Amino acid sequence: MDSSQHPDALEFPSQHKTALNPYLPSRKVSGSSDDKPFITLTYAASLDSRIAAAPGQRTLLSGAESKAMTHFLRSQHDAILVGAGTAAADDPGLNCRLRGAGGYGGRELEMQPRPIVVDPRGRWAFTQSSRLFSLVKERRGRAPFIVAAVDCLSTRKRDILSAHGGKCIIVPKSSRDDDAVRMAWRDIFRALKSEGIKSVMVEGGGDVINTLLDPADRMLIDSVIVTIAPTWLGQEGVAISPRRDGGDNELRLNNVMWLTLGQDAVLCGHPKKES
Amino acid sequence: MDSSQHPDALEFPSQHKTALNPYLPSRKVSGSSDDKPFITLTYAASLDSRIAAAPGQRTLLSGAESKAMTHFLRSQHDAILVGAGTAAADDPGLNCRLRGAGGYGGRELEMQPRPIVVDPRGRWAFTQSSRLFSLVKERRGRAPFIVAAVDCLSTRKRDILSAHGGKCIIVPKSSRDDDAVRMAWRDIFRALKSEGIKSVMVEGGGDVINTLLDPADRMLIDSVIVTIAPTWLGQEGVAISPRRDGGDNELRLNNVMWLTLGQDAVLCGHPKKES
Repeated sequence: MDSSQHPDALEFPSQHKTALNPYLPSRKVSGSSDDKPFITLTYAASLDSRIAAAPGQRTLLSGAESKAMTHFLRSQHDAILVGAGTAAADDPGLNCRLRGAGGYGGRELEMQPRPIVVDPRGRWAFTQSSRLFSLVKERRGRAPFIVAAVDCLSTRKRDILSAHGGKCIIVPKSSRDDDAVRMAWRDIFRALKSEGIKSVMVEGGGDVINTLLDPADRMLIDSVIVTIAPTWLGQEGVAISPRRDGGDNELRLNNVMWLTLGQDAVLCGHPKKES
Repeated sequence: MDSSQHPDALEFPSQHKTALNPYLPSRKVSGSSDDKPFITLTYAASLDSRIAAAPGQRTLLSGAESKAMTHFLRSQHDAILVGAGTAAADDPGLNCRLRGAGGYGGRELEMQPRPIVVDPRGRWAFTQSSRLFSLVKERRGRAPFIVAAVDCLSTRKRDILSAHGGKCIIVPKSSRDDDAVRMAWRDIFRALKSEGIKSVMVEGGGDVINTLLDPADRMLIDSVIVTIAPTWLGQEGVAISPRRDGGDNELRLNNVMWLTLGQDAVLCGHPKKES
């Protein structure tokens, strides 16, 4: 298919692709013995570490160049993970719009990652016109997997999901929390690995990112790619800042690289693994 | 004086000086008609916009290169401003340790900025062995000006201050606040301008920075230089995030430049002035 037929396809310069390479899952290590996929944490925040101006409010933070990077990163992962709040608030596409990806000049679903929605209690009220499913019909994206703590999908939702080739994965709720229905990140990632998913790009929202950065779970992160936009969103925004558990658990990055993309800076690094 | 006698003098590469130049007060505009000095807001924060791991806890955030930049910036301003909390917690020197500055190979007090401590109620409990005064005795820094809302200095403190060549400037408290003894930034800056101070580098702490970034006062800022260190300090840290006043008052920067210094990124920009 002629790529000129895809006016909405994005380009990402090859020198940036090369620069980002050390922070991406290696395609060669296909038979990794690890019981979890390679995990890349990625988000875009303001100078005051807000990913949105208010809860549930989609906020345009980063520029065109950073957006193209996000789609390149999506092309490099087997799956993209978001929380149910993000799925509900943004009606996101979670596909890859890079030129050459399936639906954007590429063959079939080439480079299209699997959308994963972490939705413990089935709160994401999707319909067949939700963007994730429209993209499946247009052959521009894969059907989502929903990770739930209980078998809570209605028959209607289950039908939509299976009609598009998606599925619901049940991961038992964690015993760590009392009230909240929450699953342990390790269990979620183990379940995804069992589905053949070797790399996951965790994109948001705030609760997903903050819990993954929690001192108890941050060792699961293999790579971090954070975009910072030159703006302050203010105190009412959705803040990224991990919990501390009393001790000196500052989370420093190793192998740091900063990339300037348009008005934004992109920080890449590997979390220091505690010994 | 032989500069080799100053082993603690810092060097800052000239290409970085050139890059920072558009964000610095112009030395040429000495007879500016503005009723306030040129205001540069500068601070170093973690990825989660924390300037310290906990209130009152001095936290090493940025690297050696960023520290040298801070001292270069100090050499380019008539004054450095901090809040009483920072003065009390850090016992800071607030001088310029750049090679060539007075006390570091330079003549007299060349390049040494005037320390300004904003201390509405006289809470900063300094003595003559406070670092600011030791540096004056060593001829490595200027005596501080204290900006207070009421004439609240004890005779002992007043004596120390005047013996070193410092002084207390009274700026009437603002009517805007009910409980807190607070002065309006515009009044503080106007008072400093009357003292012949043409440029001020605002360095911290959290309360000083957040109130200056407030929608009501941010138009007083001429230039912003923020250092970001590749670490998360966590929720208990001292956060920089401005108040919002309901409307869409995101604060974007213009003329953005990102500089990489060691492991840190430095963002320079000019606040968009509202029309």
